[in-house]
Amino acid sequence: MSVPRFLRLLDALRAAKLSGVAINPGPTLEYLTGLPFHLMERPVVLLINTAGKAILVLPQLEKGKLAASALPLSAFTYSDNPETWQTAFDQAASALELAGPTLGVEPNHLRVLELQYLQNAMPGVQFVSAEVVLAGLRMRKDPGEVAAMRQAVKIAQEALLTTLPFIQPGRSEKAIASELVSNLLRLGSEPALPFFPIVSGGPNSANPHATPSDRELAEGDLLVIDWGAAYEGYFSDLTRTFAIGPVKDEYRRIADLVLQANTAGRAAGKPGIPAGDVDRAARGVIAAAGYGEFFTHRTGHGLGREGHEPPYMYAENELILQPGMTYTVEPGIYLPGRSGVRIEDNIVVTDAGCETLSDLPRELLQLSP
Amino acid sequence: MSVPRFLRLLDALRAAKLSGVAINPGPTLEYLTGLPFHLMERPVVLLINTAGKAILVLPQLEKGKLAASALPLSAFTYSDNPETWQTAFDQAASALELAGPTLGVEPNHLRVLELQYLQNAMPGVQFVSAEVVLAGLRMRKDPGEVAAMRQAVKIAQEALLTTLPFIQPGRSEKAIASELVSNLLRLGSEPALPFFPIVSGGPNSANPHATPSDRELAEGDLLVIDWGAAYEGYFSDLTRTFAIGPVKDEYRRIADLVLQANTAGRAAGKPGIPAGDVDRAARGVIAAAGYGEFFTHRTGHGLGREGHEPPYMYAENELILQPGMTYTVEPGIYLPGRSGVRIEDNIVVTDAGCETLSDLPRELLQLSP
Repeated sequence: MSVPRFLRLLDALRAAKLSGVAINPGPTLEYLTGLPFHLMERPVVLLINTAGKAILVLPQLEKGKLAASALPLSAFTYSDNPETWQTAFDQAASALELAGPTLGVEPNHLRVLELQYLQNAMPGVQFVSAEVVLAGLRMRKDPGEVAAMRQAVKIAQEALLTTLPFIQPGRSEKAIASELVSNLLRLGSEPALPFFPIVSGGPNSANPHATPSDRELAEGDLLVIDWGAAYEGYFSDLTRTFAIGPVKDEYRRIADLVLQANTAGRAAGKPGIPAGDVDRAARGVIAAAGYGEFFTHRTGHGLGREGHEPPYMYAENELILQPGMTYTVEPGIYLPGRSGVRIEDNIVVTDAGCETLSDLPRELLQLSP
Repeated sequence: MSVPRFLRLLDALRAAKLSGVAINPGPTLEYLTGLPFHLMERPVVLLINTAGKAILVLPQLEKGKLAASALPLSAFTYSDNPETWQTAFDQAASALELAGPTLGVEPNHLRVLELQYLQNAMPGVQFVSAEVVLAGLRMRKDPGEVAAMRQAVKIAQEALLTTLPFIQPGRSEKAIASELVSNLLRLGSEPALPFFPIVSGGPNSANPHATPSDRELAEGDLLVIDWGAAYEGYFSDLTRTFAIGPVKDEYRRIADLVLQANTAGRAAGKPGIPAGDVDRAARGVIAAAGYGEFFTHRTGHGLGREGHEPPYMYAENELILQPGMTYTVEPGIYLPGRSGVRIEDNIVVTDAGCETLSDLPRELLQLSP
């Protein structure tokens, strides 16, 4: 367990008047302990009280992993028979000696499975969201975390450049996505990618969350590729749009608009302003050109150990940016049934402003003669 | 939405005296609707009542996906501003017109995030586990589902054979795992693999849930590879153990024992017996040879749209096997700090007995001269 992070967590819990937290497998568990657990049908929960006692409930089978923990964790284990699981939670709850009635949880990660075992083990305890507390802990990245993200950006950029010659008319979205994943892994990405790449050509590019299909690229297509790499548990998340041969003038025009919006959004970040300002900077460019209704999503999202995490870049978000916060800027224009463009970069807020971690060319590159 | 599955669900809900179900993104949502949604920070919930009304709460951004649904779904959408999310849930709850006070949920999938929105939207409603109801629906695979699993096995086997020449002393576990993933994708696996392969050599093979490391293979190692493919949403999950050059006699002996246990476990399945019998058949072989304490996990787990799903193969499980149930048989022996062996196959229960879907040789193959 990372001692400074653990001490910051205890301070934050006390400040938020929480008696402790319960964390299941996910980014916060790894952030605090460094221990890799998968979310499975067998519940794993880390319990921490404000006195600094840390207890892990886990399957007997996984107990070997505890040796990698830097700080001592008490462990309560159970067998493969689910009838033994509640007992392990009861023992852990008793050993935790919670000093107050409120236990923080992560609503985006804790499942009803773990909640029910905890509720049974701790009658009278209230389970409340610790999202703000934990986001406050994880949002501001330290230099080591930013260095890992920088490396994740580097791997992603190299993987895309290696994949470009493979992108030709007749190749399917699925084949291109698989080739890109192979290159990501070969070039050093960890296997737990932030997501499987979006590769969407022609009309599919008008769907911002398209899944790669069997559709083959054709001349005149726009092609959106949204991909990322993982390094030391930290993610990159980039998007570039390409032209497959010559494309319509309107497509070139929206690509130019999105580039201007991306530039404005990337320039807007600095300490002391609300996250919403970044959204307004990018959205303003597209709205002023009359395409506002076709930019159908927020300008970006926080990025780190999660593909999407705070701070979220939507107009109403009054969260104040601070040095070390990391997020995406990814404006897009989507013409339903026809074509879409998105250009996405990764940003870190600095003491004076912000820095873009990614530097692949952003202009619409024509990939086929 | 699959109409026969939907009607079977309604019957099962009525039989279980549930007024409806709430399903978030995961295998059951895809099983029922065919719609691919990812688990994200934006909640997506499918609500169904016993009268057959089906309602989806989802981000406005994702609304385009509904066109792919075969049956009409009412949709309530929300914007990127989280303050709008509860309203969508309130509207959906009102439209659902639940006829009774109990709503089924999936404890292994529903998060506190969705639960809180649902609880706020439906005061007085009790949220109870629908795990048994939904497992009953999904455990018995139809011929189309078994055919998809058969194809997932075929892809996985071909990918391993293609990877074998890459496996040599000096190659790292991570490099071998990445090469195997590349081959899985090239040979037709869907990108949503059941899991990233376990490739564990030498002492690492003694950890059944090892993560591929930078350790390089060396002569005398045992090498455990546990991998799977995805096809039409269905998974395979196989394990084979290899010898890197000549290995100790004891390692050959445990490999032979595990093979006998695998054979006994594979032969045991048939309709009408408890799942625990399969565990006892495999475990008995290893225990009789004096290695019982080194077989530290259950003999297997159900397999389908999830990497782990019911039925679970542990001694105490009295669940009765029925035709169409699919599961793994994967006994192992793990000598702590030294070496491990596991041999895993995928089984489908037939009318008369069971069939093993996988047929790669199971003997300890020596990969290096």
